Amino acid sequence: MTSRFTFTRLATDGKARRGVVSTPRGDIQTPAFMPVGTAATVKAMMPESVRATGAQILLGNTYHLMLRPTAERIADLGGLHNFMNWDRPILTDSGGFQVMSLAELRKLTEEGVSFRSHIDGSRHMLTPERSMEIQRLLGSDIVMCFDECPALPASRERIAESMRLSMRWADRSRAAFGDRPGYALFGIQQGGLEEDLRGESAEALRGIGFDGYAVGGLAVGEGQEAMFGCLDYAPDMLPDDKPRYLMGVGKPDDIVGAVARGIDMFDCVLPSRSGRTGQAYTRRGPVNIKNARHADDPRPLDENCTCPACTNYSRAYLHHVFRAGEIISSMLLTWHNLHYYQELMAGMRSSIASGEFTAFQAEFHAQRAQGDIEPI
Amino acid sequence: MTSRFTFTRLATDGKARRGVVSTPRGDIQTPAFMPVGTAATVKAMMPESVRATGAQILLGNTYHLMLRPTAERIADLGGLHNFMNWDRPILTDSGGFQVMSLAELRKLTEEGVSFRSHIDGSRHMLTPERSMEIQRLLGSDIVMCFDECPALPASRERIAESMRLSMRWADRSRAAFGDRPGYALFGIQQGGLEEDLRGESAEALRGIGFDGYAVGGLAVGEGQEAMFGCLDYAPDMLPDDKPRYLMGVGKPDDIVGAVARGIDMFDCVLPSRSGRTGQAYTRRGPVNIKNARHADDPRPLDENCTCPACTNYSRAYLHHVFRAGEIISSMLLTWHNLHYYQELMAGMRSSIASGEFTAFQAEFHAQRAQGDIEPI
Repeated sequence: MTSRFTFTRLATDGKARRGVVSTPRGDIQTPAFMPVGTAATVKAMMPESVRATGAQILLGNTYHLMLRPTAERIADLGGLHNFMNWDRPILTDSGGFQVMSLAELRKLTEEGVSFRSHIDGSRHMLTPERSMEIQRLLGSDIVMCFDECPALPASRERIAESMRLSMRWADRSRAAFGDRPGYALFGIQQGGLEEDLRGESAEALRGIGFDGYAVGGLAVGEGQEAMFGCLDYAPDMLPDDKPRYLMGVGKPDDIVGAVARGIDMFDCVLPSRSGRTGQAYTRRGPVNIKNARHADDPRPLDENCTCPACTNYSRAYLHHVFRAGEIISSMLLTWHNLHYYQELMAGMRSSIASGEFTAFQAEFHAQRAQGDIEPI
Repeated sequence: MTSRFTFTRLATDGKARRGVVSTPRGDIQTPAFMPVGTAATVKAMMPESVRATGAQILLGNTYHLMLRPTAERIADLGGLHNFMNWDRPILTDSGGFQVMSLAELRKLTEEGVSFRSHIDGSRHMLTPERSMEIQRLLGSDIVMCFDECPALPASRERIAESMRLSMRWADRSRAAFGDRPGYALFGIQQGGLEEDLRGESAEALRGIGFDGYAVGGLAVGEGQEAMFGCLDYAPDMLPDDKPRYLMGVGKPDDIVGAVARGIDMFDCVLPSRSGRTGQAYTRRGPVNIKNARHADDPRPLDENCTCPACTNYSRAYLHHVFRAGEIISSMLLTWHNLHYYQELMAGMRSSIASGEFTAFQAEFHAQRAQGDIEPI
């Protein structure tokens, strides 16, 4: 524990980094995966269960929370940690990405983005200053700069304009955030798949100075190969003594590849969303539990997994409750998926620490290449 | 623990009885409330959480389980206890009530009921013999006779005919059940609100001989006053050295009134179903969490309740997650409601044991008369 926000690199293996982010609300061992708690809940999970999977930090969504129940209401109720019963660190996004992808009738200006709520059509405005205010009201430990990013593919001109706007907003975010000991502000690198624009963005962010740096604007439709191509250089442009966060990523193999390229932090809705749609992630790749071949299978999803879904239930049961539309299906599969993701991160952390990350990656891919267990 | 099924009366207070049902899978302190696990899950709850509320026995539904995933499949997978990860006693209904209320194109004959599945339209037949077979395949600890009951109001003639058919089926159920040490078969009294028919039914059941006796055919639309009127005499007609079970009841005040009239066991979907629709049961009566007055309320649902929903969350949070359609809303409110029901049963048990059940009832009604806490 610490009264300040710090990042310590404990070991490196190639470009992969093993570290620890310290905050007054607790440490985060990196590489770290942050489950997404969009509307003040990680869907279908109790927070103590999220903690039991090994999660040390959650992500909350500014866009959703500002609309319902509103940041002011959460502040009045003692902040997001108290509201949702999670006393460890919380990172909040800035709302920028979701305003652009989810909101209706949005209008982008130098000042910010005005939009209509997808819930009730009410009018709102997000600016760097308002985003900082909302994240402060929520009590977020790691605050993200307000930024904007175009969906790919986009023209180089559009990407450059957008990136430069985001850099001006990063400057305004930094000024609005002010000096808040124990809380962190992360800048977000943009620039699409254009190496020189990524460099220009990194330069601007370093000039402003942040507690951590995100690689933004990826995982927006460009595909894994293009994403890895960008990650071959983009993280290297960011300060190596600060945590690096790849926003919105991803599938297990995306994460392993990104860690190999120097990323420390991840968030993604996939493990929880997939849990609700019957898809499980396992060491041997994804398993679709609604497939009829599981209906009579007494074996667990993964016999080596120690989560409650694998310890206490058969594939036949998981198949049954999914088909029957039972809530426990979402509860068990989400728990399993989050457990698997955390175990994957823990495996990467220990293999980086012992200089065996190359072997870890080979084993990760070899297990997946086997495919799921044979039907009984 | 015991290798046999037994019932011991520990104390009485007026007509109210404090007892214990012993089975090889564990004891059930009575008066007992059995949460309903229709499709091999108590909706929105992990079984260990159901256990944590104090539940000592669950109810499973023959009708739902025979259709999906089927009794044969559950038997192949080691029985219902293993399938759903609940190692304590399970009572299963016979399917009779639900076939009549849920199934399509049902046809009633002396032999049994033929019907079409509400899931896929497939044709099935339930008879006393088939119901016993299904409940044996499931591994149910307490098996219910296959019976039939008309919705009220119904003509006296219809009620009498139906009751006599159910008594012939009770005889066939007893014969088909056979001799299964450690497992129990309960007979079901019918006869609607006709005292003489209730007497005739009880006489028939006593002649056959069962391990326990249910009062059936109530809570089907007759109202609390009529139900209590019937319970003023119906339980007394059943052997007093066997457990008495009032099927499908009920709201908290229904249960308290029925315990006062000599009932030992209850099941009802209300606490779980209401949990999913935003209704909480508390000492001070029902609370509708979706009501706007809770939106800013930092207080728990019930400050004296020790369930996770009341210990860790505000009414404002419960209101928010219900409005946002989040699964945790169903999880928390179901947990609270089942906890409240179990606490209510525990309170009745200790007050009967100490001869203070009259005072308990007065306090129960006085607390409810206060109504919910004032808005902040």
